[in-house]
Amino acid sequence: MASYEELRNFLESDTQLITGDIPQEYLTDVLKRLKGTAEAVIKPESVEQVSAILKWTYEHQIPVTPRGAGTNLVGSTVPDHGGIVLDLSGMNRILELDAETMTATVEPGVVLADFQQYVEERGFFYPPDPGEKTATIGGNISTNAGGMRAVKYGVTRDYVMGLEIVLADGKILTVGSKNIKDSSGLSLKNLIIGSEGTLAVITKCILKLIPKPETSLSVVVPFDSLEAGIKSVLAIKNENVNPTAIEFVEQKVIRLGEKFLNLSFPYPEAKAYLILTADGRKEEVYRNLKCIQEVAKKYGALDYLVLTDQEQSQNVWKIRGALVKAVEAVSEQEPVDIVVPVNKTAEFISYVNALEEETGMQFISFGHAGDGNVHLCVVRGNLSEEEWQIKKREHMQKIYKKAYELGGLTSGEHGIGLSKKEFFLKETDETNLELMRAIKRSFDPKQLLNAHISYNK
Amino acid sequence: MASYEELRNFLESDTQLITGDIPQEYLTDVLKRLKGTAEAVIKPESVEQVSAILKWTYEHQIPVTPRGAGTNLVGSTVPDHGGIVLDLSGMNRILELDAETMTATVEPGVVLADFQQYVEERGFFYPPDPGEKTATIGGNISTNAGGMRAVKYGVTRDYVMGLEIVLADGKILTVGSKNIKDSSGLSLKNLIIGSEGTLAVITKCILKLIPKPETSLSVVVPFDSLEAGIKSVLAIKNENVNPTAIEFVEQKVIRLGEKFLNLSFPYPEAKAYLILTADGRKEEVYRNLKCIQEVAKKYGALDYLVLTDQEQSQNVWKIRGALVKAVEAVSEQEPVDIVVPVNKTAEFISYVNALEEETGMQFISFGHAGDGNVHLCVVRGNLSEEEWQIKKREHMQKIYKKAYELGGLTSGEHGIGLSKKEFFLKETDETNLELMRAIKRSFDPKQLLNAHISYNK
Repeated sequence: MASYEELRNFLESDTQLITGDIPQEYLTDVLKRLKGTAEAVIKPESVEQVSAILKWTYEHQIPVTPRGAGTNLVGSTVPDHGGIVLDLSGMNRILELDAETMTATVEPGVVLADFQQYVEERGFFYPPDPGEKTATIGGNISTNAGGMRAVKYGVTRDYVMGLEIVLADGKILTVGSKNIKDSSGLSLKNLIIGSEGTLAVITKCILKLIPKPETSLSVVVPFDSLEAGIKSVLAIKNENVNPTAIEFVEQKVIRLGEKFLNLSFPYPEAKAYLILTADGRKEEVYRNLKCIQEVAKKYGALDYLVLTDQEQSQNVWKIRGALVKAVEAVSEQEPVDIVVPVNKTAEFISYVNALEEETGMQFISFGHAGDGNVHLCVVRGNLSEEEWQIKKREHMQKIYKKAYELGGLTSGEHGIGLSKKEFFLKETDETNLELMRAIKRSFDPKQLLNAHISYNK
Repeated sequence: MASYEELRNFLESDTQLITGDIPQEYLTDVLKRLKGTAEAVIKPESVEQVSAILKWTYEHQIPVTPRGAGTNLVGSTVPDHGGIVLDLSGMNRILELDAETMTATVEPGVVLADFQQYVEERGFFYPPDPGEKTATIGGNISTNAGGMRAVKYGVTRDYVMGLEIVLADGKILTVGSKNIKDSSGLSLKNLIIGSEGTLAVITKCILKLIPKPETSLSVVVPFDSLEAGIKSVLAIKNENVNPTAIEFVEQKVIRLGEKFLNLSFPYPEAKAYLILTADGRKEEVYRNLKCIQEVAKKYGALDYLVLTDQEQSQNVWKIRGALVKAVEAVSEQEPVDIVVPVNKTAEFISYVNALEEETGMQFISFGHAGDGNVHLCVVRGNLSEEEWQIKKREHMQKIYKKAYELGGLTSGEHGIGLSKKEFFLKETDETNLELMRAIKRSFDPKQLLNAHISYNK
């Protein structure tokens, strides 16, 4: 039997290892509802330490759960199989900003907000913009995080040029590079992105940057129904106006957000809203927003509020950004981040609304209208724990089934983790799962890394 | 011993199967220098036929070489292990243009030029634009083809939403989807893209489209040295001007192109040229080209020729497009498509020029300055066959070694195939190769699909 104290041999300082009484935060995710167990928490400070630790855990067949800031919503960082938690949040240095190749090289523990600010202060821009700004870049890559600006700029996957990774047996390798084009063998890099820590531990990230847009401007477009608003989205996307973000949100959710933050949202009498952003050069932004206005009008927009006032703009986005927390403040809820083809968004939401009416179970939906990524909170309300568990599962089964019928997927940006695994496995074809399992075995033959997410039923 | 005549059971018409005397075109690629052998050529017309054929070849352990138009330059379609050639060029239907999701669904044998024309006539745009317009979409996906417009729009990988594929054992599955975001398990789709037919046969492709840009305009910028031109490229990329394409080409190569096509290129007295394109709305294009002009001037541009004349613009691009063939018309040559980080392009070309001077071996380079993707022709000239084989290999070893020292890769867009395999295997880390081999085994345990490209030394 291996003693976890041996791990001290690979570390510089005593504070890098916790054994015995493991702080609760390491045993769960940000929602704190799923709990695991761990024998030790290790905070490596270098790739060499990660490699030495993983060699040791490999030899002793000890499960490893890597984690960044632990902000995930699906239990990806819950150490369901015990063993060690590998906390990478201390590896948080920005190693290089290479202006010539327009890339930045960072350690995985760098926090998204810090990184965005760092590059913007230097005239560059990192487009991925997931809602949770305190997440780490390593976590963003592991879930292929999306966020608001995906309509124009794509998701995290599109900005990962290369990665240094450590395999379960401690081998260090680089996948991808600073090269813009690559037809040189299988894309291992793209396997790691979105793999939720199941294939390797990320220790370095080469990220693509673009020049910082000259300006960015948002509008709020009120509608008298969510359906009307969402229908206009397809028309807007078909125009040559390149919107940065297209969000949708219903009045009832805005009310929760206003109350939660004690801020007010414009045009309170509307039933639903689109929030859009355009960025680029000033004339271009104004021209695109004008064109969007014309389309929105055709689809019944009640007004068109250009948020030139900085404070008002910030408040609108603060409210939009706080919606999950605003719902959570009122009642326990299960956040679902189903994605459907963008033209099925309205049908999916109608289904959910009908289900709500039929069953009395409360759902709150908002999210990324521009890419069919619906954030759906399944709300507990007054249900007893037992009822809640049963009803939640039953309704989620229905919702995922509908999403897949519409050509959708389990997760647009949160990942599968523990809490969506059942639905993902049920709805995914067995041949696809077989291939995922075979790939998992190729990278991690002893099934040690995030063993709970192993694509096994 | 299986009789290839049994394959007729899975086909509709006699013309779908060739046995006995196999036409030469099926045994080679477009350069016709590498040759394989095959017992049969099969031209399937549906996914069901592909599946039935692969079940049969799997059972009888017969190698399969899938091919589209056979336009590749690296021997990817050379049936090096015998068996059957699976000609997918007959599966060339455009199945759907979905304006709402802005996707098109096509069979793999659709020819790039036909597809581009089809979508543009309907107000859409398929940005990937590899030089070889008679290649198939399936071939483009299999090599992750890049092309001219990658600077602004990215490569083929960025426009593949989903694929229907058939595994070596005949199983049919779908990877990817019409969803814009996806954090639902390992990205099998991204493994297939660029895998050169080693993992599966592609039978259907869901492609992302964008609205057609309002206008597109090119400029020729003459310089008195290639180095000066290439140095300006980094500065141009750092500006907020979003160029669509940035090509470089030397005078000596232009001369060959002019002669080959009997066309003339503007500003003949310059030593080297950049050719740039901007697209988008008209004002935007003019504004961006103006800004590029200012940067180019700072870096010593001799002139700035805006190609408003349609015919002149077409001629410039015709010459640029014909350069490989123009070199080939003068002497046998080996086309190399090394990619280096964009800020290493000048250093790489300087190395190649010095090597030329030192050894007398002739190299001709041109290509995608905007993404470090250098097309380098190693020219045979008057060398005897024996000398040529020895010298070609020796010089290519040096060139690839240098490229990797600079952080580059074997191939930016052509793929590895047979002719670059030696160099790719030599320069790639063993751990990466091991993972590629393990993935290959997961998809194709009997090593039947394009067995010659199996990541084995």
